[in-house]
Amino acid sequence: MAIRVGIIGYGNLAKGVESEIRKNKDMELKGIFTRRDPSSIKIKTDGVRVYSVESLVGMKSYFDVMIICGGSATDLPRQTREYAKHFNVIDSFDTHAKIPEHFKAVDESAKEANKVAVISCGWDPGMFSLNRLYGNCILTEGEDYTFWGKGVSQGHSDAIRRVPGVKNGKQYTIPVPEALERVRAGEAPELTTREKHTRECFVVAEEGADKAQIEKNIKEMPNYFADYDTTVHFISEEEFLRDHSRINHGGFVIRSGRTGFDNENKHVIEYSLKLDSNPEFTASVLIAYARAAYRLEQKGDFGCKTVFDIAPALLSPLSGEELRATML
Amino acid sequence: MAIRVGIIGYGNLAKGVESEIRKNKDMELKGIFTRRDPSSIKIKTDGVRVYSVESLVGMKSYFDVMIICGGSATDLPRQTREYAKHFNVIDSFDTHAKIPEHFKAVDESAKEANKVAVISCGWDPGMFSLNRLYGNCILTEGEDYTFWGKGVSQGHSDAIRRVPGVKNGKQYTIPVPEALERVRAGEAPELTTREKHTRECFVVAEEGADKAQIEKNIKEMPNYFADYDTTVHFISEEEFLRDHSRINHGGFVIRSGRTGFDNENKHVIEYSLKLDSNPEFTASVLIAYARAAYRLEQKGDFGCKTVFDIAPALLSPLSGEELRATML
Repeated sequence: MAIRVGIIGYGNLAKGVESEIRKNKDMELKGIFTRRDPSSIKIKTDGVRVYSVESLVGMKSYFDVMIICGGSATDLPRQTREYAKHFNVIDSFDTHAKIPEHFKAVDESAKEANKVAVISCGWDPGMFSLNRLYGNCILTEGEDYTFWGKGVSQGHSDAIRRVPGVKNGKQYTIPVPEALERVRAGEAPELTTREKHTRECFVVAEEGADKAQIEKNIKEMPNYFADYDTTVHFISEEEFLRDHSRINHGGFVIRSGRTGFDNENKHVIEYSLKLDSNPEFTASVLIAYARAAYRLEQKGDFGCKTVFDIAPALLSPLSGEELRATML
Repeated sequence: MAIRVGIIGYGNLAKGVESEIRKNKDMELKGIFTRRDPSSIKIKTDGVRVYSVESLVGMKSYFDVMIICGGSATDLPRQTREYAKHFNVIDSFDTHAKIPEHFKAVDESAKEANKVAVISCGWDPGMFSLNRLYGNCILTEGEDYTFWGKGVSQGHSDAIRRVPGVKNGKQYTIPVPEALERVRAGEAPELTTREKHTRECFVVAEEGADKAQIEKNIKEMPNYFADYDTTVHFISEEEFLRDHSRINHGGFVIRSGRTGFDNENKHVIEYSLKLDSNPEFTASVLIAYARAAYRLEQKGDFGCKTVFDIAPALLSPLSGEELRATML
C-alpha cells in the first residue's frame, strides 16, 4: 500500500509537493489542508480533496505523513510542534539560529506521540548541511565555504519592496567568480562578506518616484545590502514580468583540506546545485524525507530528526539489495 | 576513552590511514598488522607496534575496530569475511559486480559475532555512491552521470606495464570537457564510452624496444583502451619519476532532472572531487566510517553495512546538538 501523504498549506512549496509526489509510485497524495476557505482553493490533482486545517486532527487515521509547507517566521514554530502530536511530519524550517529551540519543542511532541518529525529539510538547511557534515568528517583539517546563487533571495526581494517608491522588486544573490575560483583551487582564502557575494536588484519604480533616492535607500540598507557590492537596475513592469518571474536558485558547498604527514596534499570536495525552481526542488527533498519519516516510525525510532540522523537508504523506494546492485 | 583502531596491511592506503588518524582526537592507532615479517616494516608513528597478522585474533580485546587495507581482487573477499568474526571492520572493496556476494558473506560473519562491518567504503564506491543515491531520491525523473579523473587509474597503469617492451607506465583517465559541459547544462545527453573519457598514457620504453608496436598494443588493448581515444607519450625514466609519481585522482557525479507539472524546470546536482592523493583521501573516508562502525556496535546494530545504511551524524565526533548548531 502506498504511503498516504497530506500537505499543509498551499503556497509555492506545497504546489511543488503536489507536482513532484506524482513521480513517486510508492506514495499517494491524500489531501491538502488550508487555513483559507477550502472551496476557494483550486488544486491541480484530480481526486484529491482540500480540507480546512481545522479538520486535520480528526483525520489522523487517513494519513501516514504530513508535509508542512508553512513559513519559518511564524507558521512552522507553532505548526510542526503541534502536528507532531498527531502525525509524522516534515518541515523546511530555515531560521538557522532557532533550530536548536525548534528541535527541542518538536522532539518532545513527537516522542510523546510515538511519531517521527523531520525538521529543517530542503537544500539549505538540508542537502548543503549534509555536504558540510560529510566534508568535515572526511577532511578533518580544512575550511568550509558556502556560496549561494545565482538565485532569487526572497528575503532581500521583500526588503526592496518595502522601500518607499518601489512598486515591485527582485534581488539576485550572485557568488563572486574570483572567490569561487580561489576556493576551488584549494587556496583556502579568508573572504569577507563583500568578497563572497554581490547583490543585483531589479526594481519597478512607482510613477514619479525619485530613483536616485530609491537606489541609495537600497544600497545603504543595513544587514541586507550595506555590506555588499549592490547593483540596482530600474526596469519597466513589462520587463519585470517577462524576465524575472522565475524562482531559480542554487549554490555551492566546498570543503578544502589537506592530508599527509606534512599536510602536503590538497583536496577539494565541491557540491553544487543549479535549480530552475527553488520550491519544486525543495519539495522533492521533503518528499524523499517523508518516505524516511514513515519508515522510521515503522521501525519505532521516534522523535525529531534532521538530515544528519537519517540513513540515506531510507530515502529510496528501492531495497538494500537493489541499491547495492545499482548505485554503490 | 579513544576508539582503538588497528590497520591490516601496510601499503599506500594503510599509510594514508596511519597519517590521517592522527587528526581525529577521539581515535587512537593501536597497532598495524602485516603478512610480512613485522621487523621488516618501518612505520612513521612513534609508540605503535607492528604485529604479524597471525597474532591478530588473539588481540581481540585490545581493538575496537580494524581498518582492512588489502586489495579487492584476492585479499578483501577473504579477509573481511574472516576478521568480521572477531572485530568491527571496514574495507574499501571496489569490485562493483561482486559487492552483493561480498556483502552476504561479511553480513553472516558479522551478525554471528555481534560485530559491525562496513564494506565498499571510500569515494567510488563510497562518496560517489552516496551522491548517486541522494540525487536519485530527490530528482526521481532524471539521468545519472559519473565521470572519473583527471587521475591515475591503477588498473590501466598495470595493464600498460604488462605490454612487452614497457619498463614503466602510468595512465590518466580524463573526462571529455565538452561532455561534462553538456551534462552540466542539463542537456541530459546520451554519451558513448568514447565520448565520456579519454586516456592518456606516459610510457618509459625499454632500450631498443619498438615504440610504434608498444603504442599499437596499448591503443588496441580490448576493455582497457580500444573503446577510448588514447594518447601515448614516450618519456624518459627521469621525466617519469619527476612528473608522474603522484597518485592524484578525482571525478564528478552529476544528476540532472526535471520537475513541474509539465517537467518544465531543469535541475542539476553536481558533486566533484579533486584529490592530490587518492589513498589518503580514501583513508580519510575509511576513518570516519570506522567511527560509525564502533558506534553502531555500541548501539547493538550488528551486521554488514554500506555508506547507504549509515546516518551521517555517526561519522562525526560532534554531538547532535553541536552538529545542529554549527553545520545544519
